[in-house]
Amino acid sequence: MTKFNDFSEKYQPQVNAALKTEVAQQVSNQSSSDWGQMLTYALLTPGKRLRPLLALAVVDSFGQEITADAIQAATALEWVHAYSLVHDDLPEMDNDAYRRGQLSVHALYGPASAVLVGDALQAGAFSLLAALTGVNAEQKVAMVATLAEKAGANGMVLGQVLDMQNHDINEDQVALAAVLDQVYQKKTADLLQAAALIGGHYANLADKDLDRLAAFAGAFGLLFQIQDDLDDYDQDQEEGVVSLVHLVGLDQAHDLVVQLTKRSNQALADLTQENKNFDSELLTSLLAKIGA
Amino acid sequence: MTKFNDFSEKYQPQVNAALKTEVAQQVSNQSSSDWGQMLTYALLTPGKRLRPLLALAVVDSFGQEITADAIQAATALEWVHAYSLVHDDLPEMDNDAYRRGQLSVHALYGPASAVLVGDALQAGAFSLLAALTGVNAEQKVAMVATLAEKAGANGMVLGQVLDMQNHDINEDQVALAAVLDQVYQKKTADLLQAAALIGGHYANLADKDLDRLAAFAGAFGLLFQIQDDLDDYDQDQEEGVVSLVHLVGLDQAHDLVVQLTKRSNQALADLTQENKNFDSELLTSLLAKIGA
Repeated sequence: MTKFNDFSEKYQPQVNAALKTEVAQQVSNQSSSDWGQMLTYALLTPGKRLRPLLALAVVDSFGQEITADAIQAATALEWVHAYSLVHDDLPEMDNDAYRRGQLSVHALYGPASAVLVGDALQAGAFSLLAALTGVNAEQKVAMVATLAEKAGANGMVLGQVLDMQNHDINEDQVALAAVLDQVYQKKTADLLQAAALIGGHYANLADKDLDRLAAFAGAFGLLFQIQDDLDDYDQDQEEGVVSLVHLVGLDQAHDLVVQLTKRSNQALADLTQENKNFDSELLTSLLAKIGA
Repeated sequence: MTKFNDFSEKYQPQVNAALKTEVAQQVSNQSSSDWGQMLTYALLTPGKRLRPLLALAVVDSFGQEITADAIQAATALEWVHAYSLVHDDLPEMDNDAYRRGQLSVHALYGPASAVLVGDALQAGAFSLLAALTGVNAEQKVAMVATLAEKAGANGMVLGQVLDMQNHDINEDQVALAAVLDQVYQKKTADLLQAAALIGGHYANLADKDLDRLAAFAGAFGLLFQIQDDLDDYDQDQEEGVVSLVHLVGLDQAHDLVVQLTKRSNQALADLTQENKNFDSELLTSLLAKIGA
């Protein structure tokens, strides 16, 4: 049960250190001195670094070494995640002045800078993938394609668009299936799928294994979001935020967590059976931490 | 003198048609019906399509055929250019309600949608490059690296950051060299360089040729921006906008145009001498259209 905790304790500091180094590499000395600071502030927002850790956990689970290059591939996910948080917090979006107890980027640096910080972070993620040295060009292209698809017009950004539109309609009209399949899948699960798949591409897996990983991470991503809503249930209630848990009720939300945990475990069991290099222990431990 | 006009007349409609098709491919039917419309509206803002046409002109100038796949590579530049315009027009940025005579994206769809449209367009550009079929994986990685670098934290976005900071300081303090080297180079020339280089990578050129192309497009990009400011001189004067031309005066601006035209022509002459497959006529004609 503590294997993922140990893994996280070991690699989270390395991910944070890499994020700092990467900003220094991407921002030249010519540029204004506070620009690098803004990007670093956005990237190092307190957080679990779940997406890079998931990518690295996949690499590790297939028996491959976690090199500095693998960490670079994994941090690309944090660059995209960080950009999405910076833009989500903007006044015209969720208008959040705080993010995990510290000022959001727009609250600290102004909304124009926050738009530009987010834009630069997204581009930076693709720079990081293109500059990897431990994989071949085909693997890099697969990672770029995965990240662009899962973060883009039919992925994470679409989740935001649909979420925004949901805010405007009566909650009775929202079919559970639509919310689950669209907002939750797109807004949260898609980038977690991208994390698992980028780990998988880094480990140069076959399509069949990648499909299993996508199944695992898709179910895990929904689970993670529902669990997050369950954790925030009382606070959301007070603030009038309507989450999936409010739509379906606590009992059904707990049932969903059980079902999704089962689906995630099944995908891991399938992988174990089909690929002798795969050790499910680390991802099972992650799942146990989040799921039912 | 009309070769580039003919080229543009032939390929601009093909670029526009490709942009429409690409949105339909990237946005699934599941998603909300107006999402695809928003992306299309942003991409098909009236314009010259200079960046994709420059990329295609490079491919053509090295004697290679302009296929649908080459057009797809070229349109990636328009996805990035369009995203930058959508975000530039936001209320917290330039707060422009109109773009070339039609409502800007935020004015029509609201600022939250405009943020998301821009975000999705940037991701889409990388999807397009990763999905090319007429080049090898190394070429695709080179194009992704080029676009991410030239559009990112040390490229186009940095130009916006510096431009924003310049708005706040006394114009006397702005050294000409700093403005030229930083804002103009980053904000405009970098993406034009990316266009030339993506054309060059598509044609699988050697590093030496790519360097010459970068030199051409860097000078051409500055030239293009100064010429643009010269064209807008009277209007800027009325509206109190301070452009480079206002900082250095009309005479020196015209001198700069002459110098940059010379540098651009020199780069084309070098390419002609060094690569027998290169025909300078089309790019010379483009330069004649813009330069001195």
